[in-house]
Amino acid sequence: MPVLLAPDQAPELPELLDAANTIGLDWSLAGPGDGRGIRIAGIGSLSAAGPLEISFLSNPKLASQLAGSRAAAVILRPQDWDAARAAGAAPQWAAVLCGQPYLLYALLAQWFDQRRREGLPTGIHPSAVIAGDAEIAPGASVGPLAVIEAGARIGAGTRIGAGCVIGAGCVIGRDCLLHARVTLYHRVRVGDRAILHSGAVLGADGFGFAPDPSKETGAWSKIAQLGAVVLGDDVEIGANTTVDRGAIEDTVLGNGVKLDNQIMIGHNCRIGDHTAMAACVGVAGSTTMGRRCVIGGAAMFAGHLTLGDDVHISGGTAVTGDILEPGRYTGVFPAAGHADWQRNAAVIGQLAQLRKRLRALERQERG
Amino acid sequence: MPVLLAPDQAPELPELLDAANTIGLDWSLAGPGDGRGIRIAGIGSLSAAGPLEISFLSNPKLASQLAGSRAAAVILRPQDWDAARAAGAAPQWAAVLCGQPYLLYALLAQWFDQRRREGLPTGIHPSAVIAGDAEIAPGASVGPLAVIEAGARIGAGTRIGAGCVIGAGCVIGRDCLLHARVTLYHRVRVGDRAILHSGAVLGADGFGFAPDPSKETGAWSKIAQLGAVVLGDDVEIGANTTVDRGAIEDTVLGNGVKLDNQIMIGHNCRIGDHTAMAACVGVAGSTTMGRRCVIGGAAMFAGHLTLGDDVHISGGTAVTGDILEPGRYTGVFPAAGHADWQRNAAVIGQLAQLRKRLRALERQERG
Amino acid sequence: MPVLLAPDQAPELPELLDAANTIGLDWSLAGPGDGRGIRIAGIGSLSAAGPLEISFLSNPKLASQLAGSRAAAVILRPQDWDAARAAGAAPQWAAVLCGQPYLLYALLAQWFDQRRREGLPTGIHPSAVIAGDAEIAPGASVGPLAVIEAGARIGAGTRIGAGCVIGAGCVIGRDCLLHARVTLYHRVRVGDRAILHSGAVLGADGFGFAPDPSKETGAWSKIAQLGAVVLGDDVEIGANTTVDRGAIEDTVLGNGVKLDNQIMIGHNCRIGDHTAMAACVGVAGSTTMGRRCVIGGAAMFAGHLTLGDDVHISGGTAVTGDILEPGRYTGVFPAAGHADWQRNAAVIGQLAQLRKRLRALERQERG
Repeated sequence: MPVLLAPDQAPELPELLDAANTIGLDWSLAGPGDGRGIRIAGIGSLSAAGPLEISFLSNPKLASQLAGSRAAAVILRPQDWDAARAAGAAPQWAAVLCGQPYLLYALLAQWFDQRRREGLPTGIHPSAVIAGDAEIAPGASVGPLAVIEAGARIGAGTRIGAGCVIGAGCVIGRDCLLHARVTLYHRVRVGDRAILHSGAVLGADGFGFAPDPSKETGAWSKIAQLGAVVLGDDVEIGANTTVDRGAIEDTVLGNGVKLDNQIMIGHNCRIGDHTAMAACVGVAGSTTMGRRCVIGGAAMFAGHLTLGDDVHISGGTAVTGDILEPGRYTGVFPAAGHADWQRNAAVIGQLAQLRKRLRALERQERG
Repeated sequence: MPVLLAPDQAPELPELLDAANTIGLDWSLAGPGDGRGIRIAGIGSLSAAGPLEISFLSNPKLASQLAGSRAAAVILRPQDWDAARAAGAAPQWAAVLCGQPYLLYALLAQWFDQRRREGLPTGIHPSAVIAGDAEIAPGASVGPLAVIEAGARIGAGTRIGAGCVIGAGCVIGRDCLLHARVTLYHRVRVGDRAILHSGAVLGADGFGFAPDPSKETGAWSKIAQLGAVVLGDDVEIGANTTVDRGAIEDTVLGNGVKLDNQIMIGHNCRIGDHTAMAACVGVAGSTTMGRRCVIGGAAMFAGHLTLGDDVHISGGTAVTGDILEPGRYTGVFPAAGHADWQRNAAVIGQLAQLRKRLRALERQERG
Repeated sequence: MPVLLAPDQAPELPELLDAANTIGLDWSLAGPGDGRGIRIAGIGSLSAAGPLEISFLSNPKLASQLAGSRAAAVILRPQDWDAARAAGAAPQWAAVLCGQPYLLYALLAQWFDQRRREGLPTGIHPSAVIAGDAEIAPGASVGPLAVIEAGARIGAGTRIGAGCVIGAGCVIGRDCLLHARVTLYHRVRVGDRAILHSGAVLGADGFGFAPDPSKETGAWSKIAQLGAVVLGDDVEIGANTTVDRGAIEDTVLGNGVKLDNQIMIGHNCRIGDHTAMAACVGVAGSTTMGRRCVIGGAAMFAGHLTLGDDVHISGGTAVTGDILEPGRYTGVFPAAGHADWQRNAAVIGQLAQLRKRLRALERQERG
């Protein structure tokens, strides 16, 4: 774990918890002392944290690491604290009792990262190329060698990273963070508090072609993509993820949508609020997804599908039809030793025939 | 649908059709009036188009939307127009009768997008870094902060977007459009009228290594990649797609090849004319594909394969052997509820044994 | 095959072999002459090489091409040379006998590519934006429009390509090659002799969120990612590949790890020395892989898994459990004609039931 703060800049435990807990989670201290005099310079896992670090227990499987942890403090649920003491542990760390330890850890991690970000350069770097009619709100930052094209508007508190290209007519809200080398084509709209990672491309052309036999058999004529991409508030887009602009209407990502790296969202898709997708997911065009869906890595969706709310798709699953009921859905060929796979996969091409033979036997048996 | 043109700049319907129809499609007007006085400022879907927009019917499933469409004009086949009137519809829109409505729509969308592109800045931006011996044809444009390396040649009418890097000795044809942040390694050759999207990387090293036990067990020695990438005319490459340079010979994409986003083409591949691939496809090295193939999203190809002409591969399919006959090929594990999947997937590892048991029963039955 | 050197700059064969063979492979000349007077300007395949080129035989299937090759020289194993002569071939080329022809070819290809790289510009381009406290070792190069942020350190002989962004506090070793447009977030550490391809992003945030019901049902609170990415020596990272920073600890790639294009390595992963992955692989977070693993293209790994040393995963395989034993593992649904696939895939959802019916028949048979 890197040192995040010098010890003399590290806050005392109660002070840190008060500062980081911006959403009013309940917490209390237990164990040795009242937390005064305990300085916290960073966050560590139970097994690796040192005496200037705070740790947390969110995965019950790791409870056995509590007793031996060298952390200065540990966030855990009251029942886990009671269980640890009942098991005879006499931990050296201060206990931070909280019903949602993982969420409190998230808030602490955000607080430490915010300290780092406060040290970053602000203002508009002189090497940036900004169109005369672009509007950069006071308090927004533009990094070196970024390009802001005609008519784009950047909201207050938003940071445009080095080498970003913001296309003509884009509108980006307040307090967004665009890391280095993000590309927005023209007229993309981004809500407030977005985080866009390097290499992300929003608003490239959707993939649409009409057969054009006037040129040559098999030739294609491009469907120019006239829609845009619209992102709600609190959206995060991972590194090298692409979201294509709509053909006619817009491609829309709702509030709180979280996309990991290397995801592809095709044109005209509509993704509901708070839906989260792990890396390498592909969603073909015109597919609509509900709210609060959770999509495992490398899942793939055919186009023109409808998914309801609260649908969970396992990693690696190919979805080729509508799924309207909440629940978890899976379709993955099980991995096995190669020779076993060869033997069993060879039967896949005979399944319909095997079923037929089984039926024939059953009829004979009955007859 | 965004307003594409101000109403006073919107052409009248016949004027628009004449201007956009650059390939001589047959069309005629029917319904109310002769089209004079109908101004078209944009394109909308049947359900969303407003009174300044043109729409089209290409998917027969949407024919029921014809009667209620508020569009100013609708492109449709004569037989669909007849059927709509026979069904009693008395549409308010002008009918544009055409045997290929989707292709006529494509031409109109191109026309509107061309209006937008005419407003873009031209010339060589002073912040671009251009090698002294690079050749930029008159009428080519180079965007801000682009880099053109030694000996590269850019054809007339070609537009190099902001932040592109064009490697040494590259040759790019006429009337190409490189969006922002495209990377070409050295000696990549691009034909005329290419469209390359942001984040695309052409000419990175193919993945080749020779085991080198002189260093350590398992160590690798790099096979430097000495070939190049060659693109025919009318190629489109999607955002964040990568096409690797050949090991010795070149990696070649034929005329009219269309690649969507996040596709990977390995070294030494040869892709035939007009073959189109949807997003997230991977093609391992030295695979040859014929002409007019259509590859669904997230399909994957092993290396050293041969595909014939007119092969269609369904999305999500892994192709591990040659496919020489035209037709559609598929291999996707069907998605299901997770518990159902668990039950059925567990049998996959017993299929060879199940077949054996079935045979045994059949023998007993016969005997 | 492109001309790599002008004929008058082409070395004689023995001179070339001595210069390129930096690791002391045994080789000897056979066939016509002693190699003197044979000039080698490039490398070609057996079928395509011309009289100024050297070729090699590493794939026994191509032995039939030996007799007719127009190459000036061919690298091959002594036994293949004997076999060719026994078969009556009287080749015109000089034979370079070597027990590891593919490795010797690799060294020659490196030598030719090194000639090209010697011609590249060096030094720090005036358009690069370099923080005042960044340390660029003597002999390192920084390309045009690259950005080096505060406190970064670049080792001697390392080349930073055009448009790269090197984040604050990064440390890059000696003799690395960063192609154009590589992005390193803050505090990424790279060993010596790394090759990082365009569009690669190292150190973006891992994908971590805690449910935060304080905002709205389904809302997420970001887990700020405080770890970093650490690469050993001799690592190669392909174009548009992403390696995320760790949540608390670091994401670690060992010495000699080779990643192809468009790979995604999730946060907290640890990849063992010399493990190689073909393109489009996804590895979810906190998965640990051993040494010398070989991962086929588009393979996918769930998170929190452990793979041992020397595990080979076939392309397209989804790995959802630990694999501790060396060997090859596969799980791919076999592709077939679409109608056949439909028939057989329909049975997948009945497999558990089919097994039950088969058991029932067996019981009846026995009873």
